[in-house]
Amino acid sequence: MALITFLSDFGLSDSYVAEVKGIIATVAPGIPVIDVSHDLPPGDIPSAAHVLGRVWHRFPGGTVHLVVVDPGVGGERAALAVESGGHFFVGPDNGVLTPAYIGVAARVVELPVPEVAAPTFHGRDLFGPAAARLASGTPLDRIGRPFSGEPLRLVEPVPWYQGKSVIGEVLYVDRFGNMVTNLTEDLVPPYAVLEVEGFDIGPVRRTFADVPAGEPLAYIGSGNTVEIAVRNGSAARRLGIGVGGKVRARLG
Amino acid sequence: MALITFLSDFGLSDSYVAEVKGIIATVAPGIPVIDVSHDLPPGDIPSAAHVLGRVWHRFPGGTVHLVVVDPGVGGERAALAVESGGHFFVGPDNGVLTPAYIGVAARVVELPVPEVAAPTFHGRDLFGPAAARLASGTPLDRIGRPFSGEPLRLVEPVPWYQGKSVIGEVLYVDRFGNMVTNLTEDLVPPYAVLEVEGFDIGPVRRTFADVPAGEPLAYIGSGNTVEIAVRNGSAARRLGIGVGGKVRARLG
Amino acid sequence: MALITFLSDFGLSDSYVAEVKGIIATVAPGIPVIDVSHDLPPGDIPSAAHVLGRVWHRFPGGTVHLVVVDPGVGGERAALAVESGGHFFVGPDNGVLTPAYIGVAARVVELPVPEVAAPTFHGRDLFGPAAARLASGTPLDRIGRPFSGEPLRLVEPVPWYQGKSVIGEVLYVDRFGNMVTNLTEDLVPPYAVLEVEGFDIGPVRRTFADVPAGEPLAYIGSGNTVEIAVRNGSAARRLGIGVGGKVRARLG
Repeated sequence: MALITFLSDFGLSDSYVAEVKGIIATVAPGIPVIDVSHDLPPGDIPSAAHVLGRVWHRFPGGTVHLVVVDPGVGGERAALAVESGGHFFVGPDNGVLTPAYIGVAARVVELPVPEVAAPTFHGRDLFGPAAARLASGTPLDRIGRPFSGEPLRLVEPVPWYQGKSVIGEVLYVDRFGNMVTNLTEDLVPPYAVLEVEGFDIGPVRRTFADVPAGEPLAYIGSGNTVEIAVRNGSAARRLGIGVGGKVRARLG
Repeated sequence: MALITFLSDFGLSDSYVAEVKGIIATVAPGIPVIDVSHDLPPGDIPSAAHVLGRVWHRFPGGTVHLVVVDPGVGGERAALAVESGGHFFVGPDNGVLTPAYIGVAARVVELPVPEVAAPTFHGRDLFGPAAARLASGTPLDRIGRPFSGEPLRLVEPVPWYQGKSVIGEVLYVDRFGNMVTNLTEDLVPPYAVLEVEGFDIGPVRRTFADVPAGEPLAYIGSGNTVEIAVRNGSAARRLGIGVGGKVRARLG
Repeated sequence: MALITFLSDFGLSDSYVAEVKGIIATVAPGIPVIDVSHDLPPGDIPSAAHVLGRVWHRFPGGTVHLVVVDPGVGGERAALAVESGGHFFVGPDNGVLTPAYIGVAARVVELPVPEVAAPTFHGRDLFGPAAARLASGTPLDRIGRPFSGEPLRLVEPVPWYQGKSVIGEVLYVDRFGNMVTNLTEDLVPPYAVLEVEGFDIGPVRRTFADVPAGEPLAYIGSGNTVEIAVRNGSAARRLGIGVGGKVRARLG
C-alpha cells in the first residue's frame, strides 16, 4: 500500500494541514498520510530540504513525499512532481525538493494549476491532490507535462582546507540545540580536534555519555556528519551559535 | 471506510489526545483518526468553530468530526452528536459545532453521560466513544435521544455599510500572522481599496508575490474572504492588530 | 491488527519522529503508528513515565508502546522490550518503562545493539525496528535475550500523615496548568479541605463549573487522584507552584 508523507510550515494550530488531509482522503481513500513535520519556521526552504533529505529514504519505495513550504505560492515558481530513487516527490520548484535530485536520475513534470485553485493555498488545491493521485497509482506523466526547465537545487556549503585544518559550518540546529555540520565522517580522522567559533570541543566522541553532563562534545551524528552537542543541554544556547557558525577540525 | 477527525485544545505535550485515541482504537478497531489540531488556545470556542468550518467539508461524506473544546465539561451544557450534510459531528453544546448547523438540515441527539465518566474528561469517557460508535456504523438515534433544545450557535459579526465603504472585521489570525476577515468576495469589487485600523493596504491582490517582500497586501483567501498579510512576514505583528480589528473596503 | 504508540521527546520540528516512522513502515508495512506525544521536555523521564502510565491501558491488548526518552543513548543503559498486562513496551532501561512493571507480571528481554546503529539515535536504529517486529508478530524471545538485571523503576513519592492531615505532592503539571497530585481518591473523604503550599483551595469539587471563573478548585481528576486547577485559567501560573509542591488535605 502506498504512503504519503507530508512536510510543511503550516503549523499545527490552524486548519491548513487538515484541509490538505481531507482532500487526500477524498481523492485517495485509505491512503495513510504520515506527518514529517509542520513546525518548520515559516518559509524556511533550507530546513525543509534538510529534513526531507534525512527522511525520504527511510520510507518504503513508492512512497509519495509531499512538501509544502511555498512562500512564492501563486507566483512564477513552477509546481513539480518528481520520480526519483523509486520514490515520488511533490512540491514547489523553490529548492525544497533538492534531495530528490541528488545522486539519482529524476523524472520531473510540471503540474498544471487548476482554474479553481486558491492562489495562496496550492497545498490544498494543487500539491495535495497531485500527491493523492500518485499514491493511488496514477503514472507521473498523467499528472503533468515534462518540465522543460532545470529544477532549482540548493547548494550546501562545502568544507574547505586551511593549513592543517578543515573548515565546515553548521547547517541545521535541532530542538535539542544540537548543531549539525557539513563535515562528513571521512573528513575527521580519529586524531582530529574540533573547535566551533573559537570554542574548544575536543576529539570526536561516540555518544553523549562520553562526556560529563553539561559539557560540549563532537560526535558523528545519525546523518553521518559531525554534530556538536552539550550533554543534557543545548549547544546552540550554550555556545550562542546558529546556522552558518564555523567549525574547524584541526588535523595536526 | 469511515474516518474520524479530531479537533481539541488538549495540546500535544500531555496524555489526553492519546487517551482518547486509545478508547477509539478499542471501540472501533481499524478506524483512522486524523488530527485536525490540538493546539487551539485553551477554551477558545470561536477558533474551534472557525477551524471546523474550514475543514469538515473537505473530508469524504460519512466522516465523524470529534470536537473537544469544552471549558464547561461536567457542568450544565449538553453533550451532542449531529448528522448534517452527510457528515457526523460530536462535541459539547457550547458553540463549537456551529458549522454543523449552517445551511443544512441537522439531526441532533443528546448523549447520555456514562456513570463512570470522569467529570473533567468527557473527551475520553463520552465524546470519543460516541465518535467511535458512529464511525463503526451505529445509527445516530442509537447513541442518544433527540435533543429537545436549540443547539448553541455562534453568531459571527456581519459586515455593514458606512457611506461609500463596507466595514468588516478580523475573525481569525493564523500562525503566519495572516488576518482572516468576514468580508466575502462579493463585497469587494476590483476597484475597492482596503484599510485596516487606519493602515492603507491598497487594492485586492491575487497572491503574496504581487507585492514586494515585507509589504502588506489584501487578497481573497482560501476560505473565500478578504485576508490581510505581509509578504514573508506577519501582518498581525507588523500592524499590531488581532481578532476584532476593523477592516474598511472603500468603494469610491 | 496490531498498533504501535509512540512517545518521545523528539519534538515535531525535526526529522527524527519521521525517520523512526519510516523504518517502522519499512519493517512492518501497514501497521498504524499513533503519536502519544513528542513534546515532552528533552530528557524528562518522570513525565514520560507519567504519560505512559495514563495511556497504555486505554489501547487494545497487543499494542506495542514505543517510548524514546533516552538521554543516556549509546551509553551503559540497557535497551529493553517488555511484555506485560497483554501489551508490549519498548524503550531504554532508565525508568520510562516504569508503568510496565506495576502490578503485573512482566517478561523483559534485552535488545542487542545492531552494529550499524548510530550511537546517538537508537530510536531509529534499535527501538523502532524492535517495536515494528513485535507489532508484526515476532515473539518477544526472538528479539532479545532474557534481561538478567532488575529493570529500573521510578519511585513516586508516597503521601504521609501529619496530625489530622494527609500530605501529598504535585507530580505533574499539564498544558492547562492543572496540577496532578499523588493523593488518591480514598485518601480524601468528602469533608477534607485542601491546601496547596499555604493557599486554601476548599473542599473537593466535582468539576470546573462548580466554582466561579478564575477561582481555584480541587477535584478528583481523570487519573483518579486529586488535581488542583483554576477554572478557565492556569493553577500553576496563578499559584506559582510546580512539580514537587506540597498539597495538604485537612481531615479535621
